[in-house]
Amino acid sequence: MALDCVVGIDIGGQTSKLGVVDARGAVLAQTVIRSDTYGADAQAYVDALAEVTLKLIKEAGKEGQIRGIGVGAPNGNYYEGTIAYAPNLAWAVGTSIPFAKMLSKAVGGIPVSLTNDANAAAVGEMTYGAARGMKNFIMITLGTGVGSGIVIDGKIVYGHDGFAGELGHTTAVRFNGRHCNCGKTGCLEAYCSAIGVAKTAREWLMMSDKPSLLRGVDNITSKDVYEAAKEGDELALKIFDFTGTMLGMQFADFIAFSAPEAIVLFGGLARSREFLTEPIERAMNAYCLPFWKNKVKIVYSSLKESDAAILGASALAWEL
Amino acid sequence: MALDCVVGIDIGGQTSKLGVVDARGAVLAQTVIRSDTYGADAQAYVDALAEVTLKLIKEAGKEGQIRGIGVGAPNGNYYEGTIAYAPNLAWAVGTSIPFAKMLSKAVGGIPVSLTNDANAAAVGEMTYGAARGMKNFIMITLGTGVGSGIVIDGKIVYGHDGFAGELGHTTAVRFNGRHCNCGKTGCLEAYCSAIGVAKTAREWLMMSDKPSLLRGVDNITSKDVYEAAKEGDELALKIFDFTGTMLGMQFADFIAFSAPEAIVLFGGLARSREFLTEPIERAMNAYCLPFWKNKVKIVYSSLKESDAAILGASALAWEL
Repeated sequence: MALDCVVGIDIGGQTSKLGVVDARGAVLAQTVIRSDTYGADAQAYVDALAEVTLKLIKEAGKEGQIRGIGVGAPNGNYYEGTIAYAPNLAWAVGTSIPFAKMLSKAVGGIPVSLTNDANAAAVGEMTYGAARGMKNFIMITLGTGVGSGIVIDGKIVYGHDGFAGELGHTTAVRFNGRHCNCGKTGCLEAYCSAIGVAKTAREWLMMSDKPSLLRGVDNITSKDVYEAAKEGDELALKIFDFTGTMLGMQFADFIAFSAPEAIVLFGGLARSREFLTEPIERAMNAYCLPFWKNKVKIVYSSLKESDAAILGASALAWEL
Repeated sequence: MALDCVVGIDIGGQTSKLGVVDARGAVLAQTVIRSDTYGADAQAYVDALAEVTLKLIKEAGKEGQIRGIGVGAPNGNYYEGTIAYAPNLAWAVGTSIPFAKMLSKAVGGIPVSLTNDANAAAVGEMTYGAARGMKNFIMITLGTGVGSGIVIDGKIVYGHDGFAGELGHTTAVRFNGRHCNCGKTGCLEAYCSAIGVAKTAREWLMMSDKPSLLRGVDNITSKDVYEAAKEGDELALKIFDFTGTMLGMQFADFIAFSAPEAIVLFGGLARSREFLTEPIERAMNAYCLPFWKNKVKIVYSSLKESDAAILGASALAWEL
């Protein structure tokens, strides 16, 4: 039988999405499992994932036809097949897990290729989404964290060690910045992730007693801030203005690096585009060199979020 | 006759260096002309440069044997062959000069390829110098300005528009930063170029009345600061500590982008390596992600400065 299908797996802090994908990019079957119920036991998670993967392949009627499995994961290393020091995955905190090898063994030897989740999303967007036809762009994922996938001359940048493209951990606030999950302070992720936006809301509510729809909300999330902004809430609108400005200032530095055609935004927080685009573009154009002003596009992912990640991860597997 | 030689030209703010180079990288003849005595008249500069180039080719006994001319210039654009909006070249301020075309015409049709001066230096270092064998590194030129050439997978990064690699204009100080030649404020170049170091000295001398060898020096240059540091002058040593720290913090962000094997330092200010290396490494390792700590090398150019630039520019010409 021909090896005419692949599996794409997107590992997130809370859930992992997987799908069987054919050569034309159609997702034949997909499902979700939790990533966060295995404590520090990486083997337990791998075993559960392998079981579901094999079941899904069977459901799709593609047993014996899987060419390979592509995995996108936080801190996934393409060269080594490892998931290393990923603060949002309890079973990969402070250690390096030989994930590709473990998963391949657990699924009976199907080859596994692995990369950073944001790189996988960038590949998905380049192949099927908003970045089709682009050779130079930067994918920024605004989710629980802030990730990035950098494409130069049509290829993902992996760098010397496979860890390139950690733009969420560039420094947005150099001194007295917020603590970040990674152990540093002042990272872009500490301000411009979903968690960062919620933190800004909590901090600013404490700093004044102005009325706001957000006042009194338990465990504020970025979604609460979005809902309030839609109602015209002044504080919520200010929070998005601040978040977009922080992103735009940082994007100006990214442009100085690789001169991309566009910066593509993706992830849960990118759904707040109606409040983010204007401050991002304003700050980006104010902080970039004259010849880049109003040249670099801010675009939003055109794929369903789950599809982009699965498709991007699956694209890796075709190279196996 | 075989086209077995090329010409490399390095255009700087004050002088332009040029050499005839053979296929093994030997500089057969070289000379220098001024870049800054032509006012806004780009054609006058091109004509003078063409005359000297043809004379040099004759001197080297290589008439009719020149395959091409490679040029490294501030704000040189590889795709378009232009020198655009270069604040340190009076004849290219606020405008875009079709330099490659003009020079080719003036030398009787020899093809001309052009790139950013720092990119040319990176190619020179990769081919003949400290970066031999490296596929992923960042070249930082610390001269009158701060330039950069980024190498990923063995190739210079040009980006969508040919202007990639302007790391001297990433933001080191976000608010109330120094004015930079480029029109922005707070750029790395405004602090960590030779001019930036001299400015730091002048500012800090005004801020205290502590004794220093630099007090009373007319028109302080970065070389004066270096000489004072060698004598153990406390203020001069502090200036290098500050400059190195600024560089190191910014380098941490560059690492997050392309995960290089090394950052290669080049240019006049890099001669102060005995005072710069320690603060650069300290700050870089403090501000980078855990898995990069103590991994990325800081190395210094191993080529004579004039040779590196000429050789790097000449390497471009072989592709013509």
